[in-house]
Amino acid sequence: MDFSLSPRAADLQARVRAFVADEIEPVEAAAHQRITRLRESGGDHWTPDPVIAKLQAKARAQGLWNLFLPATHAGRYPADFGTDGGEGLSNVDYASVAEAMGRSFLAPLVFNSNAPDTGNMEVLLKYGTDEQKEQWLEPLLRAEIRSAFCMTEPAVASSDATNMAATARVEGDEVVINGRKWWSTGVGNPDCKVFVFMGLSDPDADRHSRHTMVLVPRDAKGVRVERMLTTMGYYDEPLGHGEVSFDDVRVPLSHVLLGPGRAFEIAQGRLGPGRVHHCMRAIGLAERALELAVARATSRTAFGKPLANLGGNRERIADARIAINRSRLLVLHAAWLLDQGMSAEAYSAVSEIKVEVPSMALDVIDMAIQLHGGAGMSDDFPLAAAWVGARTLRLADGPDEVHRNVIAKIEIGKHTA
Amino acid sequence: MDFSLSPRAADLQARVRAFVADEIEPVEAAAHQRITRLRESGGDHWTPDPVIAKLQAKARAQGLWNLFLPATHAGRYPADFGTDGGEGLSNVDYASVAEAMGRSFLAPLVFNSNAPDTGNMEVLLKYGTDEQKEQWLEPLLRAEIRSAFCMTEPAVASSDATNMAATARVEGDEVVINGRKWWSTGVGNPDCKVFVFMGLSDPDADRHSRHTMVLVPRDAKGVRVERMLTTMGYYDEPLGHGEVSFDDVRVPLSHVLLGPGRAFEIAQGRLGPGRVHHCMRAIGLAERALELAVARATSRTAFGKPLANLGGNRERIADARIAINRSRLLVLHAAWLLDQGMSAEAYSAVSEIKVEVPSMALDVIDMAIQLHGGAGMSDDFPLAAAWVGARTLRLADGPDEVHRNVIAKIEIGKHTA
Amino acid sequence: MDFSLSPRAADLQARVRAFVADEIEPVEAAAHQRITRLRESGGDHWTPDPVIAKLQAKARAQGLWNLFLPATHAGRYPADFGTDGGEGLSNVDYASVAEAMGRSFLAPLVFNSNAPDTGNMEVLLKYGTDEQKEQWLEPLLRAEIRSAFCMTEPAVASSDATNMAATARVEGDEVVINGRKWWSTGVGNPDCKVFVFMGLSDPDADRHSRHTMVLVPRDAKGVRVERMLTTMGYYDEPLGHGEVSFDDVRVPLSHVLLGPGRAFEIAQGRLGPGRVHHCMRAIGLAERALELAVARATSRTAFGKPLANLGGNRERIADARIAINRSRLLVLHAAWLLDQGMSAEAYSAVSEIKVEVPSMALDVIDMAIQLHGGAGMSDDFPLAAAWVGARTLRLADGPDEVHRNVIAKIEIGKHTA
Amino acid sequence: MDFSLSPRAADLQARVRAFVADEIEPVEAAAHQRITRLRESGGDHWTPDPVIAKLQAKARAQGLWNLFLPATHAGRYPADFGTDGGEGLSNVDYASVAEAMGRSFLAPLVFNSNAPDTGNMEVLLKYGTDEQKEQWLEPLLRAEIRSAFCMTEPAVASSDATNMAATARVEGDEVVINGRKWWSTGVGNPDCKVFVFMGLSDPDADRHSRHTMVLVPRDAKGVRVERMLTTMGYYDEPLGHGEVSFDDVRVPLSHVLLGPGRAFEIAQGRLGPGRVHHCMRAIGLAERALELAVARATSRTAFGKPLANLGGNRERIADARIAINRSRLLVLHAAWLLDQGMSAEAYSAVSEIKVEVPSMALDVIDMAIQLHGGAGMSDDFPLAAAWVGARTLRLADGPDEVHRNVIAKIEIGKHTA
Repeated sequence: MDFSLSPRAADLQARVRAFVADEIEPVEAAAHQRITRLRESGGDHWTPDPVIAKLQAKARAQGLWNLFLPATHAGRYPADFGTDGGEGLSNVDYASVAEAMGRSFLAPLVFNSNAPDTGNMEVLLKYGTDEQKEQWLEPLLRAEIRSAFCMTEPAVASSDATNMAATARVEGDEVVINGRKWWSTGVGNPDCKVFVFMGLSDPDADRHSRHTMVLVPRDAKGVRVERMLTTMGYYDEPLGHGEVSFDDVRVPLSHVLLGPGRAFEIAQGRLGPGRVHHCMRAIGLAERALELAVARATSRTAFGKPLANLGGNRERIADARIAINRSRLLVLHAAWLLDQGMSAEAYSAVSEIKVEVPSMALDVIDMAIQLHGGAGMSDDFPLAAAWVGARTLRLADGPDEVHRNVIAKIEIGKHTA
Repeated sequence: MDFSLSPRAADLQARVRAFVADEIEPVEAAAHQRITRLRESGGDHWTPDPVIAKLQAKARAQGLWNLFLPATHAGRYPADFGTDGGEGLSNVDYASVAEAMGRSFLAPLVFNSNAPDTGNMEVLLKYGTDEQKEQWLEPLLRAEIRSAFCMTEPAVASSDATNMAATARVEGDEVVINGRKWWSTGVGNPDCKVFVFMGLSDPDADRHSRHTMVLVPRDAKGVRVERMLTTMGYYDEPLGHGEVSFDDVRVPLSHVLLGPGRAFEIAQGRLGPGRVHHCMRAIGLAERALELAVARATSRTAFGKPLANLGGNRERIADARIAINRSRLLVLHAAWLLDQGMSAEAYSAVSEIKVEVPSMALDVIDMAIQLHGGAGMSDDFPLAAAWVGARTLRLADGPDEVHRNVIAKIEIGKHTA
Repeated sequence: MDFSLSPRAADLQARVRAFVADEIEPVEAAAHQRITRLRESGGDHWTPDPVIAKLQAKARAQGLWNLFLPATHAGRYPADFGTDGGEGLSNVDYASVAEAMGRSFLAPLVFNSNAPDTGNMEVLLKYGTDEQKEQWLEPLLRAEIRSAFCMTEPAVASSDATNMAATARVEGDEVVINGRKWWSTGVGNPDCKVFVFMGLSDPDADRHSRHTMVLVPRDAKGVRVERMLTTMGYYDEPLGHGEVSFDDVRVPLSHVLLGPGRAFEIAQGRLGPGRVHHCMRAIGLAERALELAVARATSRTAFGKPLANLGGNRERIADARIAINRSRLLVLHAAWLLDQGMSAEAYSAVSEIKVEVPSMALDVIDMAIQLHGGAGMSDDFPLAAAWVGARTLRLADGPDEVHRNVIAKIEIGKHTA
Repeated sequence: MDFSLSPRAADLQARVRAFVADEIEPVEAAAHQRITRLRESGGDHWTPDPVIAKLQAKARAQGLWNLFLPATHAGRYPADFGTDGGEGLSNVDYASVAEAMGRSFLAPLVFNSNAPDTGNMEVLLKYGTDEQKEQWLEPLLRAEIRSAFCMTEPAVASSDATNMAATARVEGDEVVINGRKWWSTGVGNPDCKVFVFMGLSDPDADRHSRHTMVLVPRDAKGVRVERMLTTMGYYDEPLGHGEVSFDDVRVPLSHVLLGPGRAFEIAQGRLGPGRVHHCMRAIGLAERALELAVARATSRTAFGKPLANLGGNRERIADARIAINRSRLLVLHAAWLLDQGMSAEAYSAVSEIKVEVPSMALDVIDMAIQLHGGAGMSDDFPLAAAWVGARTLRLADGPDEVHRNVIAKIEIGKHTA
């Protein structure tokens, strides 16, 4: 057993950390204020801040680019796409890098490692045809365009993916798409040019073969972004979460991913690493919240003492330290299990972190908010937005309840086998 | 022991409930969307929706007006101000009415019973000179103007009120005001015409005699609203929370409330009933969240069952019912204790509800959000905003930690006496 | 709304409190040590300590006797049985008296108000024939004999009472009883002379008409106490929890309560007030634990400060105060609802307190144990035994989970009606 | 990063697991019942069950003996003491073995790896003179005698070790010992022949140089076991927890460990690995509780379904799985940090597991108890005793609160450095 980072992960983590601390955190507040100012004045608050492109160029030049690409891509998308030597990281190695990116809402964008683009790129890498790769994957790897993932629907409980009612029917050499999706993240960004759409193609097929995944250009006829949703008041620019209607949208059959009826097959493979990424970023966020909490607790005074010396504040700081450390290990272990190949244990582990980590992060961030008083609820600190992001994670990619059920099923299976 | 409502409270509660259900809830969504539309398009999202004034007139006509006015005002502000027969309600009677108002963010405004105007009106009623009453209280009672309360400061831990650093110094027959306040609720509303300002007047006086409360017209020279703050992305229109700077603002000495150095005396009296109101409204909010949760749980289906029949959902509904019921009783009891006259027990009780109720409401609302999936985080349901409001309550009027300390001090005092 | 005790309840509560403080608490430790000594030396640790009978006589002489008897018995079992003037207390009045009794494990015995005798006496009072009353109720009311209730079975999940498999079959003018029961509380006491047995009499009847309740003399042929059970190491003398086998036990048909197949009807009526009693005693226990915690926290010193001034200890004391107060109100309200007559609201309320109060008491007692260090786990303080008693309550009379289900069903029913 | 066990740890864990499953678990119930029978009948319930010696011989023959001995002892106590090839295990390797031992209360005894003998042996190994080793360490390594550790005192808050008031004063070539200790685990066992006593030797010395550790033969004049304590009713045979008085006990100066005034130095080194052992055993216990919970949930039926399919039971099983997994990783990581050498991070990690693991185990065991109904509170399952053992761990070796303070101090130190 060895808990030390590999030299490569240690090096990348250190470099990403330094980049975040030196280049990103200092511009965070200005970027946030710029968006706020534009939003409040009815301006364009969706086009990404120019600072992002500038920082992207710098990150790419330093080889801190597309680090999420899995080991399996080796040789396919080498250095000219900015990846580190053309060889992907293992899940466990990337996890530590992702933690370093999680500290700032801007960082994943800067390193071209933000959801849902990462997941979409992985899907294209793994299942895309050469034509699909050339058209969509390569510009995504260069951050020239952005993408969205259209799965959740407003009219049904999407926690059960088989509830999905929007349709993607094959008609000759076309796919005809109808229905309404929401929580399509990334849609706010005008650079978002392609949607990975999942819909019902054959209601009579086997439960997990009824759905198809298909690439839909944003400018296809019949696609309409109805509105941008907020999460507890936040628009989450520059990505944003859109509600999108599809009205008799027609795309060529060649836009189908992997093949009609194979959407679940793709969705499964997409989710393991994606959840590791989300969770490690949430751990980075929690670490930052703890740092802010300690800084506030030691710099502000009430009743003649630093806040840190009042009531249960030290105990809460200790509990946060415990909670973060145990969650980080759980995620690293899940990543390591994924690296060993898919197994019931790995499958359970991914659901375990999905339940554990967002709630842990919420607790830590909430504690930090409380120590900041009203300031913690405002946008003068990144805590309020961090809390909302972590809260959303308890729903995105399957609510806690669904994951608990997966874990229990595996656990009961072990004992009854 | 008798847990039934008095006939008067029962009647008022029933009428307020019906008004909220029939007149307010149906227009809530449109009012919210109008504000969003204006905000998103750079329009004026601060001037209150005209529907509010219309509903205010209706409520006033039905005698559902200024119901928060305490029993002690009897005869002073009678029916022509719209109060019910000119006789105030006891705390315990008003509590049940306040619960009914808590269901909708619009309702307290409609019944002229929203913070901070209620607290400011009570202070003016109790401590104001005839001149102050005529100038400010009467238009407030008629909802012609609105007010704010300027206490919290950005630069110090305001959980310890004696930290307050903004100044209100008496110079001859004037008071000179300097400093910066934030979380001044109500400032967004253009009708907000007067600020109740609390500042340091004599740093050498006894710890609780150093501060003065003074009425500052919003248009006084040197007053400047620097910005509007958000709570987790919400602007909380039409009240809003402002950061306000006071730069050598001069008001006549007659604007002082009660007398120089007596701010803490006023602040104390203000807070007991105000906390009861806040808490009972939070209970109304929690009840609504539970209703929405049950409605969602019984109308949506996943994995072939209504959500209510999945996993621990029923248990969570049961826990919410228990939590709301026990909290309500705790608040009603605190209100009843206040009606018996101030005592250590009442003092503790007010801090107990301030700790208990917002956290309880947060748990219930969070559960409802989780049952709603992504929709719960959006503004399609009032849950996300309700959560943020309840979260803010864990900080406003003293953070939980300060109240826990009050309770513990009284408890330890009992046993060591 | 009026939260004050009735004069009668206030008087009885004060007198019971004084009796517990002056007569019972001072002899508790000696009684406990005597049992321990006897148990450790292989002596008779089951025969009740003689101090109990002495205190019973005193309590009876003061009219503090059989106070649990419901209002409805009025006139039937008057002063000569020691009850207060022959007129029963309402549930809400008795609740406050029960809290006072809950402080000491001896007190309910001393006031002849301990489970399961109270429930058995109520059943006999309500459903017993004159003959049954004369034979069993009257000696129970005089504390000359004791009784047990045989319901739970080792071989099935007794949380679902319809699982019950022991049989009570009518054969001519006899009832033939077979099966095994456990957690029959009271069986350890040699004075325990009668068992209220519940068994399956007609498996083909309607689900709630299959079972019969029957009085079984302990010395009936075929009755055998197989062993005494422990709860976390405690024997809970002098009552104890027995495992009892019934092997072709025959009793006359006249021993049936109410009639064959009517056990559920009886069980339902028995449980409401019984749960109020249990819960109010648990609140008395929690109050005592809090007192002990505060006493310890203010008298012991570590790191140069009283424990009360270390870390989160004051916050925990505050949380305990809040928790006890809100639970007490919930129980009093449930008792008051029962006094208004059975309703869905009352039915839910009884389940609500059954879920809420034992867990609350566990938290408070656990906090007190922690503040006592190792001593808290020993029997030098009544805390360890109190914890175990409260823990048992989460299972006795229906586990939390069953009650949560009842509450949820009623809640969902309200909204879907 | 590599989460796989070393081949040696994997082999030892597998062999210990098999031994526990095949040899120990099958005799557990009989051993428990024998003790109960003896205790209930006033017999000798302290002399260890003969099965233990038999199993010890078997374990020793298989090299599963003294596995706790640290790597540093290499070569000193080789195979003839039964250790595995004479080379100690690293902390991280032993941790997995300790987990396997934690499943059964008998197992640590069988493998000669039970507290407090392990800690005492480590102290003797590290600090003992050759004479001390020959006299005490060697028979301990052969399990011929047992030992106790006398530190906690009834009269002071022992969470602050400097409160210790019992004395160990050097007088010429003797040490004179006075005072009273309790929670001296192991004292019940008649084979317990030596006490490691810690007492105040020089009240005027530096705060951490005032105390001395000294070996006191149990049969020294003036040593008296006053009584055996219970933890929630359990005597914890065959070790037991004693209250011991020392009345002018005199031992030669050569019985001092390391030197007068050096007790804290010894105590520090003792605690890191000891806490890892305790915590890993607690994880083994929690795993067993979860197994029992799943077995019960799938084998018992209520309301027509297996318990596993009722309400939140599956969610609770999932939460238990998450909790155990994250705690295990936290302990393994702490063990690994200890293997890298003492550091602030390792110091914090040991306190983190001491806070995290017992509470986690309590939650899991409590859930299992609840699923077992009344049976869970009885001794028909090992759950009730397991709960009490885990609860005791929240106090032993420093209460949670003290460890939280250590963690917070290190955390705050990091940020303020």
